[in-house]
Amino acid sequence: MNVLLTNIKELLQIRDASTHLLKGSEMKHLPTLKNAWLLIEDDTIVDFGSMMAQPEGNIDKTIDCSGKIVLPSWCDSHTHIVFAGNREQEFVDRINGLTYQEIALKGGGILNSAEKLQLTSEDDLFAQSAQRLEEVMKLGTGAIEIKSGYGLTTEAELKMLRVAKRLGQTYPVTVRTTFLGAHALPKEFTNKKDDYVDLICNEMLPAVASENLADYVDVFCEEGYFSVKDTDKILSAASKYGLTPKIHVNQFNSIGGVAVGVKHNALSVDHLEIVSDDDIRELQHSNTIAVALPACSFFLSIPYTPGRALIDAGIPLAIATDFNPGSSPTGNMNFVLAAACIKMKLTPEEAINAATINAAHAMGLSHTHGSITKGKKANLIITKEIPSYGFLPYSFGSNYIEQVICNGELV
Amino acid sequence: MNVLLTNIKELLQIRDASTHLLKGSEMKHLPTLKNAWLLIEDDTIVDFGSMMAQPEGNIDKTIDCSGKIVLPSWCDSHTHIVFAGNREQEFVDRINGLTYQEIALKGGGILNSAEKLQLTSEDDLFAQSAQRLEEVMKLGTGAIEIKSGYGLTTEAELKMLRVAKRLGQTYPVTVRTTFLGAHALPKEFTNKKDDYVDLICNEMLPAVASENLADYVDVFCEEGYFSVKDTDKILSAASKYGLTPKIHVNQFNSIGGVAVGVKHNALSVDHLEIVSDDDIRELQHSNTIAVALPACSFFLSIPYTPGRALIDAGIPLAIATDFNPGSSPTGNMNFVLAAACIKMKLTPEEAINAATINAAHAMGLSHTHGSITKGKKANLIITKEIPSYGFLPYSFGSNYIEQVICNGELV
Ligand SMILES: [Zn+2]
Ligand SMILES: [Zn+2]
Repeated sequence: MNVLLTNIKELLQIRDASTHLLKGSEMKHLPTLKNAWLLIEDDTIVDFGSMMAQPEGNIDKTIDCSGKIVLPSWCDSHTHIVFAGNREQEFVDRINGLTYQEIALKGGGILNSAEKLQLTSEDDLFAQSAQRLEEVMKLGTGAIEIKSGYGLTTEAELKMLRVAKRLGQTYPVTVRTTFLGAHALPKEFTNKKDDYVDLICNEMLPAVASENLADYVDVFCEEGYFSVKDTDKILSAASKYGLTPKIHVNQFNSIGGVAVGVKHNALSVDHLEIVSDDDIRELQHSNTIAVALPACSFFLSIPYTPGRALIDAGIPLAIATDFNPGSSPTGNMNFVLAAACIKMKLTPEEAINAATINAAHAMGLSHTHGSITKGKKANLIITKEIPSYGFLPYSFGSNYIEQVICNGELV
Repeated sequence: MNVLLTNIKELLQIRDASTHLLKGSEMKHLPTLKNAWLLIEDDTIVDFGSMMAQPEGNIDKTIDCSGKIVLPSWCDSHTHIVFAGNREQEFVDRINGLTYQEIALKGGGILNSAEKLQLTSEDDLFAQSAQRLEEVMKLGTGAIEIKSGYGLTTEAELKMLRVAKRLGQTYPVTVRTTFLGAHALPKEFTNKKDDYVDLICNEMLPAVASENLADYVDVFCEEGYFSVKDTDKILSAASKYGLTPKIHVNQFNSIGGVAVGVKHNALSVDHLEIVSDDDIRELQHSNTIAVALPACSFFLSIPYTPGRALIDAGIPLAIATDFNPGSSPTGNMNFVLAAACIKMKLTPEEAINAATINAAHAMGLSHTHGSITKGKKANLIITKEIPSYGFLPYSFGSNYIEQVICNGELV
């Protein structure tokens, strides 16, 4: 099946297959082609070019993109979209000034999310998560990383990862999975954190690995959660199973999470709302990607990751949604793009690079996703008619996505 | 034509025809009916009730609202949606650190918006504005206030207001118009502000009144724009033509704009990002409505209006988009609702009241809009299937509006 997109007003993010992770001033540059066509064969981009020289041969279907912009789908490299229920009541309780303890008693917080998930069947969990995935696909997400971490028992963590895998098998979106057993300390392990870390290392990790359920390992490295020492131990254990780290660091405090991530060759360190000069130096001497999560900053009213400073320091930056029920109840990458420009002072070019090619790198998919490249997956966003691509972040309250093609399929 | 909405999961904002403006703790209360039906005859809500006792008689069309919430359309009481072009380049220039003067030289700023509008034909201006209006109607806005203020000559101000009026005649949405000649000082009047104020009072206002083009009068009362004295003069002149004030005050500084608004019995004072204790006392002893514009605060990264404090002080609050190309390039009332809860700490009930019944009061439409009341206009939002109305602000990145009925017409 050959599908031709014609009269594209502007085709964004045209890259060579060998394109590396973008750093520093490289992020300013977004290669585009105006008045273009693009040819899809089954699930693959096979060719593109200027309308001055149109392709020949058999075309099964033509999509007229007059006045429209075409770009690679968003890659969302950090989400927790597999969860049970929601935490809307907790949101309202916080507005009403309830304390953390009062909220926990009313059924809020991560431990209550875990309890709810443990009681939810795998099929029900799949159905709830599928609804969210369908929504974000329509919003332009073509590849998504999904973490466990609301299970907190071996059984429930495996259940989450199986659901995440099944989402990837059911939908054309590409899914990468991350084991996040170290997301919070279960009630049963109060004052016995070492025992829980041992459970992660000696029971959960082997089980996850034997079922081949995870591509990456994650730890919430933060005061009151898991220490640098805990993180070091878990990442060491995970490395035996070939699991590369993508970790939660520096959301509230800079306690050395970046350094321990870099030590273990983390693919990415995510959050980074609080960044020290030492953290920047660590990242400058590494291949680790910084991932900012501006929707979480908006929702929690915590600082935005200093994305401008990170780019100016030559560090590769990606942006993601952190979609989860407690601190970022949205999977809308378009809002993330807007917030990256409005709040982190990225230019539209930098933000688009951060949400596509760099984000693909941040989930190990740069060979197939994140750019308009011959041979890559046909994962594409076709916008409505807009004056320029800068309108995507500028018009932050509008949905300018008209059509989404996910691995060759019209979503 | 009779249309019946059945199986409504929850019908929000059921009020008596006599419902007054809500203040203080009244705003906490949102009257609802679960498992309800609602009957529309032509453009009017004629009845509603519980599914336990369904209506009899002839029904031309039935809309099944199973699992869905129905509420009155948003009233957006503060917009500038009639404008020419856009200011996306200025947005990018600001990110790139250009100074105000460099931006003005490149064609940014309000005076350049005015220049562009002066050169745009009335039909073209209508077409550009109609596109924006169609978008916001689909996002649930059923009544909208539209200001002039990008004309800054008598001719161009009249053109803007004629376009605004024509929008209301062309679309089922209800439009209220506001004359904002005192939006900025035109270049030709540099160092001659008194002359421009005189032009407003002696030429523009009479012309606007003689064509019956405006329902309200507005002034940007702010340091560097129009002083309290200028404002007083313009509002006095406007009162001769029966134009009630709705004014821009306290966006950057508290200079006495609230007091001069209250003195002239302003229907609303809008912005209020900076509020003094004196301002609160002024409002407490008035019938003037405070209007907060949180999308503008988000986009410009200026403080949010202290909505929580205003409500707690017993002041009636409404929320609006401030849709304009420079400081709030969105007309999405759903985002405004979310920001009101997330940033201003309104409960979902308070925010919905602020965006419906109080907003209808803030544009003089409380007799026809803003609540589910027998005899009011059939201006309705039907949501997608959502667990509760709190999901509207909680899921701030999602569009949960499935259908919109505007004066009885399906949009
Ligand atoms: Zn996260
Ligand atoms: Zn305004």
